[in-house]
Amino acid sequence: MTTSMSLYTKHEELLEQAVKALHTRTYYTPYPEHPKAYPAEANDKGKDWFAGMMNQDFKELNIESNSWIGEEVSPYFQTGIGVTYPSLSVDSLVENATNAKTWKSTPVKERAALLIESLERVKERYFDIAYATMHTTGQSFMMAFQASGPHANDRALEAIAMGYHEINRFPSETEWVKPMGKFDLTLKKTWKAEPKGIALVIGCSTFPTWNTVPGMYASLITGNPVIIKPHPKAILPIAVVVAELRNVLVENGLNPDIIQLAVDTVSNPITKQLAEHKAVKLIDYTGGNVFGDYIESLNKTTFTEKAGVNSVILDSAKDIKSVAQNIAFSASLYSGQMCTAPQNIYVPEEGIETEEGHVSFDEVTKHVAAAIEGLVNHPKMGAGTLGGIQNDSTIKRIEDGGNFGGTLALGGQEISNPEFENTRLFTPRVIATDHTNKEAYSQECFGPIVFVVKTKNRNHSVEIAAELAETKGALTCLAYSTDSDMMNTIENRMNEAFTPVSFNFGGAAFVNQHAAFSDFHVTGGNPAGNASFTNPEYVNKRFVWVGNRYA
Amino acid sequence: MTTSMSLYTKHEELLEQAVKALHTRTYYTPYPEHPKAYPAEANDKGKDWFAGMMNQDFKELNIESNSWIGEEVSPYFQTGIGVTYPSLSVDSLVENATNAKTWKSTPVKERAALLIESLERVKERYFDIAYATMHTTGQSFMMAFQASGPHANDRALEAIAMGYHEINRFPSETEWVKPMGKFDLTLKKTWKAEPKGIALVIGCSTFPTWNTVPGMYASLITGNPVIIKPHPKAILPIAVVVAELRNVLVENGLNPDIIQLAVDTVSNPITKQLAEHKAVKLIDYTGGNVFGDYIESLNKTTFTEKAGVNSVILDSAKDIKSVAQNIAFSASLYSGQMCTAPQNIYVPEEGIETEEGHVSFDEVTKHVAAAIEGLVNHPKMGAGTLGGIQNDSTIKRIEDGGNFGGTLALGGQEISNPEFENTRLFTPRVIATDHTNKEAYSQECFGPIVFVVKTKNRNHSVEIAAELAETKGALTCLAYSTDSDMMNTIENRMNEAFTPVSFNFGGAAFVNQHAAFSDFHVTGGNPAGNASFTNPEYVNKRFVWVGNRYA
Repeated sequence: MTTSMSLYTKHEELLEQAVKALHTRTYYTPYPEHPKAYPAEANDKGKDWFAGMMNQDFKELNIESNSWIGEEVSPYFQTGIGVTYPSLSVDSLVENATNAKTWKSTPVKERAALLIESLERVKERYFDIAYATMHTTGQSFMMAFQASGPHANDRALEAIAMGYHEINRFPSETEWVKPMGKFDLTLKKTWKAEPKGIALVIGCSTFPTWNTVPGMYASLITGNPVIIKPHPKAILPIAVVVAELRNVLVENGLNPDIIQLAVDTVSNPITKQLAEHKAVKLIDYTGGNVFGDYIESLNKTTFTEKAGVNSVILDSAKDIKSVAQNIAFSASLYSGQMCTAPQNIYVPEEGIETEEGHVSFDEVTKHVAAAIEGLVNHPKMGAGTLGGIQNDSTIKRIEDGGNFGGTLALGGQEISNPEFENTRLFTPRVIATDHTNKEAYSQECFGPIVFVVKTKNRNHSVEIAAELAETKGALTCLAYSTDSDMMNTIENRMNEAFTPVSFNFGGAAFVNQHAAFSDFHVTGGNPAGNASFTNPEYVNKRFVWVGNRYA
Repeated sequence: MTTSMSLYTKHEELLEQAVKALHTRTYYTPYPEHPKAYPAEANDKGKDWFAGMMNQDFKELNIESNSWIGEEVSPYFQTGIGVTYPSLSVDSLVENATNAKTWKSTPVKERAALLIESLERVKERYFDIAYATMHTTGQSFMMAFQASGPHANDRALEAIAMGYHEINRFPSETEWVKPMGKFDLTLKKTWKAEPKGIALVIGCSTFPTWNTVPGMYASLITGNPVIIKPHPKAILPIAVVVAELRNVLVENGLNPDIIQLAVDTVSNPITKQLAEHKAVKLIDYTGGNVFGDYIESLNKTTFTEKAGVNSVILDSAKDIKSVAQNIAFSASLYSGQMCTAPQNIYVPEEGIETEEGHVSFDEVTKHVAAAIEGLVNHPKMGAGTLGGIQNDSTIKRIEDGGNFGGTLALGGQEISNPEFENTRLFTPRVIATDHTNKEAYSQECFGPIVFVVKTKNRNHSVEIAAELAETKGALTCLAYSTDSDMMNTIENRMNEAFTPVSFNFGGAAFVNQHAAFSDFHVTGGNPAGNASFTNPEYVNKRFVWVGNRYA
């Protein structure tokens, strides 16, 4: 038994469970999401690891280089973290990946086992990755821990499970016997899932592992060598993941360049060179629309997650305060820097009905503003919910917008984070505006801003939300209605725009959270992206079925 | 129970068998391929039906129109068949299809049952369709019967089965319970396979049903209304299929415009208008590369089968005569007008080894030429194997080519078809040429021509075949070798170029035959096309998974 076959024995049950969870779409994770589920000393060790890593070369990749680069800045410290990484040329990266194409000859069972083993190693690094994520993205510790650690591992495992299942769904060999009347025609037939070639995964600055590992593991399980090109401002979290996988590969006698890290800087980017290289056949991308549209135009197999305008449709509700609190949390979490955060709240001009009576448009706006104000000023909740702003330009864009042609219902709050005094804190602005002010609310305003949009009536709300989903894209739609006919109308129309709807969320249910093995993240059907974590297409497009026949 | 649910009960077992066959990839068909498996009188009835149909309006679609058009020409009679079809404007077709989008609300089980019922009706029309196919494509009766009848039905059923399986692989509803420590978060979740929109299927002139029904049924099973735009010279066979499905829909209270026939003429084509219409989201296409590349460039979901340069790699063989006979049949069948027909035979300049000794390059060429000569001149086999040439330009292109810069090893044979004296008969030319004469053999020369290409050695043969597959596309590769290492080399290299290999075919095994439920037709991985009959992607790309959540 090879080493990687014994790894298969080790991880077989987990893999089968994951495949089953994918197909039942029930709650599943082998990776507890709460930091308290891990050893007590792990937090301090992670904090120390990050502190010790600052201003050092990241040597865990075991790569020799004459050129070490890195320009990450902690949104909490407002200073560079000083970590540098080996800089390889595009030609070297592609040459290494070409040499690592032998990965496809490792049977898919063993590939799955090796990849799951890397997730087990990553699990031992959750706290390191959490601090690395905080100090590159500005996420709070809790979000950084969960999103970059267990939730990212869930998404990676999901991709492994889907790829494993798809590759195994056809036999590798069969005897084919066709009765021809007087005799039988017998042929041996074989089928192979032939990988498409070198895969490039382009990361984003806000979710450096969560948005990167699905494409990375999907390409790997299907036999393609992968080059990870993280955002130059958010490298360290994914560098740890890459290093751990490289270790597993080397320990099992495989070429570590099956997975590579390609590092660049804002002033000397290499992404286009990599993306346009003829040997690169697959590209995963998370980020803005302009670059995403360029990636999609390259005539390669692409998987994109771009921006969208997410909506809240307010038709009627039991309790407006609970609605406002739910929206306030979803809009404030990580200062609205989640791709799933709601932006536009559509409210009919005649207001809405609740169990406690009629609530006017202005009152709805006040409730939303008050709920955000209360949350962000809450001494125990505020700073932790908001995290920090990753990028100065996010603040600048919103501040420059002023009242965006509407009425400022809630301005920026003066709050502070006692733990990190230099954090770029910025609380959500609430703008009340009429539906005619379309130019303002029909663009994605990435970051902490919410528009409460006055519509003609509830059907008009749905129409605007659906039209923006179709033309600008949308990842989520949150809807509140106590009328089952209206719920059907909203669901059918938004689903036609390939946008999922979450109804009447309150309590611990938040629209911005998409769970692996259950919620498809991005549908791939509207301009917010052309791919989905993790539907069958997400893995099937990474290889080609080829059959051979033998007389 | 609705009518279509009782149809489901009727066809349930067949559907389950088809899904099983897809996944075991063993021989399977519910549709016997031999005409003798059908009632004795059926042949005469079909012949009479076709004779009676000539110079008539095709009224089976039950469409009123002021404009009836049609310009099909029988390659056997060399006269127009005079059948006319209702001509609808592009706007009417799209409007009708838009109104038929309600098709998605018919549950997938019922969709499957209705579609299978249509195949059962088509089965009753096999002989009608066979004569219609003969007199539009020039196929022999036997090929017309098998390809347009049972084999097309197999491919249609395969697409239905794959779509049915994929849509059912995720639950439509589940209760999702996430343990949150002190409490559980419980959400109802639902999932829908939302169809992408109106589908267009563009047919070709040589296989008017076989190449059309996979896309047609794949789009239909996934809930999309379909517009069929056949080649203006090959309408009647698919018109019968469309009519039968429309009958089934009407009988079950559904809108017949779920499937429509869009007819045009060579001088007034409507294909681009349809393809570019913004409501058309899915396009299936079979035909030449220039138009195929245009279709792929439209930024829609496309499924193309274009042209390729198919290869024969001759390394070594048991018996050169058997090899030559096998190649001769594959090259002569339907006069080389099959997309899977071999074109280039690569033979090392030093010749090849056989069990009966060494055979030089010139001797190989002579064997191939002699086998073709023998076959086409065979009084019982010749005319039936060759069929007729669909299009004058096919002959013109080959005749104009002369010796294509090589040596004419076999010229056109003077043969006749006593049954149809006007048939455009044209036997395969055999050109022997050096590998340096690349310009001649590196293009698809659609129709009856074979190049025997002298290469430096066997590895050079493989390299040319693979390179042409990568740059020009290939649907098939036929290889002869008695050396298992060389077989591995050929298989690995051609599979890397996403081309399937058939080894050592003789007897009744022919490279141009791709069986449903077993052989993927076109891999989708090289320039010969971007889709494959029928892999999971072929149906998954026609809908979008959307999930909704309810607190």
